[in-house]
Amino acid sequence: MKKYYVGIDIGGTSAKLCLYNIEGDNDNVELKWNIPTNKEDGSDIILKKLTDTISDKCAEYGITMSDISGIGIGIPGPVTEDGTVLECANLNFGIVPVKDIMAELTGISNVVVGNDANVAALGEMWKGGARGFTDVVMVTLGTGVGGGLVIGGRIHVGSKGAAAEIGHITVEPDEPDICGCGCHGCLEQYASATGVVRLAKQGISSHAESELAGREITAKDIFDAAKNGDAYALEITTRFAKYLGLALSNIAAVADPQVFLIGGGVSAAGSIITDNVKKYYEQYSMKALKGREIRLARLGNDAGILGCIKMAIDGDTCEG
Amino acid sequence: MKKYYVGIDIGGTSAKLCLYNIEGDNDNVELKWNIPTNKEDGSDIILKKLTDTISDKCAEYGITMSDISGIGIGIPGPVTEDGTVLECANLNFGIVPVKDIMAELTGISNVVVGNDANVAALGEMWKGGARGFTDVVMVTLGTGVGGGLVIGGRIHVGSKGAAAEIGHITVEPDEPDICGCGCHGCLEQYASATGVVRLAKQGISSHAESELAGREITAKDIFDAAKNGDAYALEITTRFAKYLGLALSNIAAVADPQVFLIGGGVSAAGSIITDNVKKYYEQYSMKALKGREIRLARLGNDAGILGCIKMAIDGDTCEG
Repeated sequence: MKKYYVGIDIGGTSAKLCLYNIEGDNDNVELKWNIPTNKEDGSDIILKKLTDTISDKCAEYGITMSDISGIGIGIPGPVTEDGTVLECANLNFGIVPVKDIMAELTGISNVVVGNDANVAALGEMWKGGARGFTDVVMVTLGTGVGGGLVIGGRIHVGSKGAAAEIGHITVEPDEPDICGCGCHGCLEQYASATGVVRLAKQGISSHAESELAGREITAKDIFDAAKNGDAYALEITTRFAKYLGLALSNIAAVADPQVFLIGGGVSAAGSIITDNVKKYYEQYSMKALKGREIRLARLGNDAGILGCIKMAIDGDTCEG
Repeated sequence: MKKYYVGIDIGGTSAKLCLYNIEGDNDNVELKWNIPTNKEDGSDIILKKLTDTISDKCAEYGITMSDISGIGIGIPGPVTEDGTVLECANLNFGIVPVKDIMAELTGISNVVVGNDANVAALGEMWKGGARGFTDVVMVTLGTGVGGGLVIGGRIHVGSKGAAAEIGHITVEPDEPDICGCGCHGCLEQYASATGVVRLAKQGISSHAESELAGREITAKDIFDAAKNGDAYALEITTRFAKYLGLALSNIAAVADPQVFLIGGGVSAAGSIITDNVKKYYEQYSMKALKGREIRLARLGNDAGILGCIKMAIDGDTCEG
């Protein structure tokens, strides 16, 4: 008999949804779709719209809500073990018991809610770059820097849902500029797409010879120029790699994972990132922590939605 | 009926042992004793001597090995989930399956082995400064800096037994001096007893007015002088607190514990440490991580042995 699960990866402008089925040893994405999200709506309306769209899609597939064995939800903010979102600026959520509300709206008891970066790490462990591992740290280099920590095959949430806030590890205490979080010298200020551009802009005026000079640049431009051998771009990618290698080494000294995954838009630059980060990871790591794998994530935007499905399946197993 | 457990906290010069009993809701240390350890002996002889002394003490108490429900063992080195010690310089152990060897020597199947700093964190959670919590980070400031991480009431071991190697978090990548681990700028170089003395000695020649000048000093001397208002000692304790506060903040961004405990000989200085470390912890931490408690450990040298007992009791529950 087919079992159905739904994944919902909620973002600030849209929610990705997925209907997934498992039948014996086979599992498949039955359907993926998106709906827009509007942060002006507030949590009640957003969660109701999500319930409605799931209900509609179920009808299309000739199933009902009661045929769904579980729902996994990823949210861009801290989420506690009991499925309460503590704050989500992108969605304008305050403290919202998302698990309880969705369970009530859908009539499905197995609802599991997680932070989106944690959920992406779980997705990559299940179907992506960390397949076969159970202890995984994933770093997502996008507009900001997100992090996910999986221990023993389960997301490590932390006491207040703030574990794996890797973007806010302090790597440069003397940084004069302020991070979005209000602190100084967070990893995000150097290793995010905006961070690496910020680094490049700081010194560009004295590097007129660089192909990065005299124009608007993106993170991709910087890594492309480095691949072309541009000396200034190489200097910037080295600084980027030093900070990221330092952060991963310090994460290892706390969690000792089997593998690190690097994902997010910036990671599209590929091996220039992993090769350089590995070098500095090794430099900063004590013997017992050397040699951990640092890989690229593989699932791209699907990591979140697949992690949501995995959470729902695991939640089902726990309840059963 | 009484249940008996044995704890063994093995160090480089002696092993502390404890016979513990549980009867209904009461639990008690029946006996504590020490035996010398000699690293020249090697693992086989050391573990045999430990078995013999347990057997002797059991005889004194009119019980036999078969009355013991479990043995917990703390070792000063990385220990994997299956109770294998990967390396222990202090005891001259290479890769030694301590759990299996002790189970065979004693005939007791429930043998649990952990890293000594992790075990101490568990002991403090059970009976000491972190009672009532389940997610605890303990930092032990002694000759070196050790660390223990407890998640959900259980020690987090890490993929190769190297989790919570807090002393080797890099807090000053530009440090010219080399840490014992071969890296530069590890927390241990600033926050251990030897580390804080190293810091003080570096600048003492230009601080003849300090009460620390012109004599051999210890970590205790530095904190005592700071309590007396000695300006140079205050400068050193501030640097110490900055590095430790930075490290704890970075640990929080990975593990998000409920509480931090500071133990070890250096922590005898008391609130001058916790107050200053809290200040910098808050400075370096993003909003979601602010306000975590930073407390002094309470059990001193007994933390390890009680953590060993707790591991044995938990191991018994798992098997049962």
